[in-house]
Amino acid sequence: MRKVAIIGVGHTKFGVLEEKSLLDLLSDASLEALDESNTTQSEFDSVYVGAMCPGEFNNVSGISSALVDKISLLPAASDRIENGPASGGSAIKAGFQAVASGMSELVLVVGGEKMTHIKTPGYITSKVATITHPEAERIHGVSLPSFGGMLTRSYLEKYDAKLEWISDIAIKNHKNGALNPNAHFQRSIEDFMESAIKKGKGNWKNVSEFLNDDNVNPIIADPLRLFHICPISDGAAAIVLCNADIAKNYCDSPIIISGIGQATDTHIIYERAEITELKALKIASSQAYKMAKKKPKDIDVCELHDAFEILEAVQCEDMGFFKKGEGAKAAHEGLTQIDGQIPINPSGGLKARGHPLGATGVAQVVELFWQLRGEAGKRQVDDPKTGITCNFGGFGNNILSILVERM
Amino acid sequence: MRKVAIIGVGHTKFGVLEEKSLLDLLSDASLEALDESNTTQSEFDSVYVGAMCPGEFNNVSGISSALVDKISLLPAASDRIENGPASGGSAIKAGFQAVASGMSELVLVVGGEKMTHIKTPGYITSKVATITHPEAERIHGVSLPSFGGMLTRSYLEKYDAKLEWISDIAIKNHKNGALNPNAHFQRSIEDFMESAIKKGKGNWKNVSEFLNDDNVNPIIADPLRLFHICPISDGAAAIVLCNADIAKNYCDSPIIISGIGQATDTHIIYERAEITELKALKIASSQAYKMAKKKPKDIDVCELHDAFEILEAVQCEDMGFFKKGEGAKAAHEGLTQIDGQIPINPSGGLKARGHPLGATGVAQVVELFWQLRGEAGKRQVDDPKTGITCNFGGFGNNILSILVERM
Repeated sequence: MRKVAIIGVGHTKFGVLEEKSLLDLLSDASLEALDESNTTQSEFDSVYVGAMCPGEFNNVSGISSALVDKISLLPAASDRIENGPASGGSAIKAGFQAVASGMSELVLVVGGEKMTHIKTPGYITSKVATITHPEAERIHGVSLPSFGGMLTRSYLEKYDAKLEWISDIAIKNHKNGALNPNAHFQRSIEDFMESAIKKGKGNWKNVSEFLNDDNVNPIIADPLRLFHICPISDGAAAIVLCNADIAKNYCDSPIIISGIGQATDTHIIYERAEITELKALKIASSQAYKMAKKKPKDIDVCELHDAFEILEAVQCEDMGFFKKGEGAKAAHEGLTQIDGQIPINPSGGLKARGHPLGATGVAQVVELFWQLRGEAGKRQVDDPKTGITCNFGGFGNNILSILVERM
Repeated sequence: MRKVAIIGVGHTKFGVLEEKSLLDLLSDASLEALDESNTTQSEFDSVYVGAMCPGEFNNVSGISSALVDKISLLPAASDRIENGPASGGSAIKAGFQAVASGMSELVLVVGGEKMTHIKTPGYITSKVATITHPEAERIHGVSLPSFGGMLTRSYLEKYDAKLEWISDIAIKNHKNGALNPNAHFQRSIEDFMESAIKKGKGNWKNVSEFLNDDNVNPIIADPLRLFHICPISDGAAAIVLCNADIAKNYCDSPIIISGIGQATDTHIIYERAEITELKALKIASSQAYKMAKKKPKDIDVCELHDAFEILEAVQCEDMGFFKKGEGAKAAHEGLTQIDGQIPINPSGGLKARGHPLGATGVAQVVELFWQLRGEAGKRQVDDPKTGITCNFGGFGNNILSILVERM
């Protein structure tokens, strides 16, 4: 198999981007990646777009073809990949296989979603819920946040953990997001609290009190509150992949994708042996470690899929960084901070960077690219050489893990 | 690059399949392909689903993950590929690259769409039209049939061709479809006429008169009439791909995918130099021929994307079977019949087999698999050794061509 390198990346700001269409966002991230990679448009063989709901949210199909024309990559082949909120990771895998097989030399992968223009209450949540099982789950009114709440309660009970530890994950991720100029929320939770105090909304002694106040942090899916859940965001992220043999023709310090794993689990959550364990992630991350000949202890930085903060706790366990039941406590103890034992979500994660569905899996790899090259600015982890992601599709029924390292 | 073989196929009947959901259709085709390929479920690494509009038509996302669970392929990786009406061909390419790269040994590719349950007038046409350019085309009310009409008129004028020759393509495809037990319409146009005569709807001397009668064959997009346009269908088709080195462990006569090409063209049709020429197809088919070290004269059977009958005429020219302007005449002269110089659409094509969008690109390859193995029954072409497809995405702005041959 040919080795595959990342030679350039692009990343729009994530957030409420009123002026931009989905195609604009994809174009902006792509053109930045093309520019950063010192490539010329005519060299590209193929383009993979990761997006979950362009039809449902933006009333467009064939957007990968539209993108190729808009950014002057004609006649490059192009396809859209959909794997729920893991569409970005799946697009990277498709691009990786295009290069690894020898079918392509130079591939653009871009993930994006445009969501915040939708004002119909519940529309986005109901469309995202179309990944749940129609007869066993959706018909009963289940939504993704409700699964997040159920997982949180199960975890807290099973491991005698505290909800405050889950909140500590959010506090960390907002702290990191405050250092990320592309994040949706570039503010710590302390900052949110201080603003609320100034506006006369309350007077809290500390963040813990603030986060327990129903008025500023309402319960969304018991026990999860607003600050335990990622926002709805617009945005896009892009990477340029090439045959590693020629990577140094384009950039001095390419990053290698040395491992990719992907696995599925039962569609119906009730059918899983253990709700607090992500079997698909265990398999996917094992595949990625094996392919890269690495172990969890070799990893220097990690980007996880904290659509709900409980997920970061469970994922860092199932990827081998902590024993089962110790992921939330690890965050509480500061082990996952930027200067901790294993820095998790230095980008701010989905909680603070934001979660434009199809963009997330690509944005995770973009963050690792910057981290491994020492280009992550104020949120830079100390000299990382390897990084890994978890991109979470469905509610854990289709998970990717991508391992990258310096060339 | 590793060689990739097809070792088994599945194909539901195409048509109005009221009892079946999209997931049912995908499952039915997949299980048939699994059975035919003598594989066991636990051997599969990955699954690619080609479907254009599961969100818009069926209110589901993540259907590839749902499929993997339903047919017991857990924990195989899975993704959905969307490339408009060429989603099936793109799914095959993704599966091909998974095997060719060495990331997978055994891959299921299935394409499908469930459309006929939608009763809202214009809903399907408007959703398919989301592949057109939003500002330059769609806003003006353009639909795919209107482009089909425009292309037909341009072709007839440019090449001094006759609309009757375009009708001859439909007559041939219905004749072939009558021999295909999976076709949506298993009836010749003569048969439609005779039924109409029996029902007292008219008394026509010949098919030509019948096809010119506005009451039984109304104009849809001038000059195209009902019988120049494919139906809206439900259905699915599947293939099992594997590393060619181990293909004979599963089946005696595997078929090799020896060439795949894919190319894009301008999104806005007006920007193309020549509307009667499919530049993306010229590039895609050239890539496929080159990869397989074949020329048009080496091809024994061909499946084209006749969503509108004019497309078969243009495609068979741009793939090198006839000179420009001679494709429609070739059909009129019988050169594309099952026993003709180059048999085109022995399956009945989109016109008679039907066109469940995402299924079509896979169904084309399934038909070639059967033809090359001598399993095509009454519509069998005489001893074909090589075959090629055109799967048409957008309105010609993203086209795939897949070349297969005996191992």
